[in-house]
Amino acid sequence: MLSTLQLGDGHNIGTSHGKIALDCSIRSTRQGNICISTTDFFFPLLDSPYLTGRIGAANVLSDLYAEGVGHCDFVLMLLAVCRDMPENERNICTQEMVRGFNDACLEAETVVTGGQTVFNPWPIIGGVATSIVRDDTEYVKSNGAKCGDVVVLTKALGTQVAVNVQEWRVQSSSRWKEIIDKNVLTLEMAEDMMHAAACSMSRLNRHGGSLMRKHHAHAGTDVTGFGLLGHAQNLMDNQEEEVGMEIHTLPLIANTSLVETSGNFKFRLLDGYSAETSGGLLICLSEEDAKEYIAELEELDGGEPAWIIGRIVPDAERKAKIVEDFNILQV
Amino acid sequence: MLSTLQLGDGHNIGTSHGKIALDCSIRSTRQGNICISTTDFFFPLLDSPYLTGRIGAANVLSDLYAEGVGHCDFVLMLLAVCRDMPENERNICTQEMVRGFNDACLEAETVVTGGQTVFNPWPIIGGVATSIVRDDTEYVKSNGAKCGDVVVLTKALGTQVAVNVQEWRVQSSSRWKEIIDKNVLTLEMAEDMMHAAACSMSRLNRHGGSLMRKHHAHAGTDVTGFGLLGHAQNLMDNQEEEVGMEIHTLPLIANTSLVETSGNFKFRLLDGYSAETSGGLLICLSEEDAKEYIAELEELDGGEPAWIIGRIVPDAERKAKIVEDFNILQV
Repeated sequence: MLSTLQLGDGHNIGTSHGKIALDCSIRSTRQGNICISTTDFFFPLLDSPYLTGRIGAANVLSDLYAEGVGHCDFVLMLLAVCRDMPENERNICTQEMVRGFNDACLEAETVVTGGQTVFNPWPIIGGVATSIVRDDTEYVKSNGAKCGDVVVLTKALGTQVAVNVQEWRVQSSSRWKEIIDKNVLTLEMAEDMMHAAACSMSRLNRHGGSLMRKHHAHAGTDVTGFGLLGHAQNLMDNQEEEVGMEIHTLPLIANTSLVETSGNFKFRLLDGYSAETSGGLLICLSEEDAKEYIAELEELDGGEPAWIIGRIVPDAERKAKIVEDFNILQV
Repeated sequence: MLSTLQLGDGHNIGTSHGKIALDCSIRSTRQGNICISTTDFFFPLLDSPYLTGRIGAANVLSDLYAEGVGHCDFVLMLLAVCRDMPENERNICTQEMVRGFNDACLEAETVVTGGQTVFNPWPIIGGVATSIVRDDTEYVKSNGAKCGDVVVLTKALGTQVAVNVQEWRVQSSSRWKEIIDKNVLTLEMAEDMMHAAACSMSRLNRHGGSLMRKHHAHAGTDVTGFGLLGHAQNLMDNQEEEVGMEIHTLPLIANTSLVETSGNFKFRLLDGYSAETSGGLLICLSEEDAKEYIAELEELDGGEPAWIIGRIVPDAERKAKIVEDFNILQV
């Protein structure tokens, strides 16, 4: 049972674990296989219903990929349509959301076989992604991080900053005026930031997930609502060895750090706690494997980079932390 | 793709079928087994968050049971907590919803292994239920209804009427005043009606589902948002033979028909279109099997009755309809 209200992924809710678990429910089937399943849904973050649908699918599929699963067997779609929208607008928005969702599933070579649709004050998009694998050689258990491993991140951070700045701009809010008046960002910088975030959020983590087993990943998760450090800590809590994670590099969507360091907006991006939507995979593997993983991933993902952002160290307290003199990469 | 906005279960959304499919996504696994999976969620219908949680679980599990599946392997829980509720009330309501949901899953001898939680203007409760079965002997394909079959319903109709009357009463709305002023119902009748509906909605269809294969059911579905006739029509659309359904009996929660026939409230209960939440199973099987099914089900369900409400007839148009001189059973 939820002892305190904890939003977001809650695999193992209702069990005796009493903590946020990793990205998927993983259960042995009665036939001796393993069923890996996950659900995620959220509210539209940007003006394009098509991209919203794509992001909704990329986001739920990412939970499977974070387990090193290469193939999703099928997807159920979760959809709420906005009660308060005029009917013609609602129909267009809904069709576009569904089209984006389906297109991302098509790209993932999976199929949408069902779902549920309701009216709600806010629109909702999300899904359920399921993969049944033969045995534990077909996914990564995510509990085997070793001292000396490095930590790879496959997407830059800062989607929440970009999305919020965009929202302020569209609404011509006082925060947007502040950003312009104090020269925190130019209009062009804000637009580029949002474009980078939209591309990032709608990109599948499929190749990143598929390559995990090939390159002997010891553990992995994806970075979403709890931010980099929240998910890094969950990953460390799940390890068999007494290890911690030291993060030395934060790859950020260009200029998102300017919003943070201007002193007026508190996303906790540089503390590692800014929420991400459909963020990257965070993977522990040997340095040699990491280099090969990154090289092959960049090739498959059309040149999109991934980075070594930290290392696994001995730590009886199993802490994930950002080192004091960390580097920022503007991406 | 959704060509027109269709709320509710949408299995096969996104495929070329272009119609509402039956209750579950049914997919062969890569290992040669069959994965049966479904999702459903909705908004609280009654004051008790505990019962709301129970109903949310019973409702999603029912989709599996409607396929003749006896055992659910695992459940993911979908939860939205009310943004606008004071925090202490919200925590209690959320805990009670989760407790009710878990209790129903415990009764179903399944386990909640994950989920997703968000803030929303309205609370949401629901889930994803999944069962992996060996082959098609472990579920009912729901396409084999035969002329001469009878149709069994395992719960009385009228939950939406009861829930709405309750809502009007709690809000002291003008509709409630009308019900009292025009002697449509007494307060006691309204309370009994709501109690019956709450018991019915929170009751699992587990035994009804488990017994389908034992008693050679040819097809089945459950009655939810589209009402008895909506789901009956879906079932007929899914049949291999050219058959239709003639419904001759409507078992109704006592006095719900009084609300309908008073002429002031339009639920379309007697037309077969009043929505149900966590309604009964609607099953086609031979008359002999039906009698044994009903007898055994009543025993397992602690005396709760089920009824033969119709028959399967030859019909090239595959229509489900209620005959003109139908009977009403007050339950």
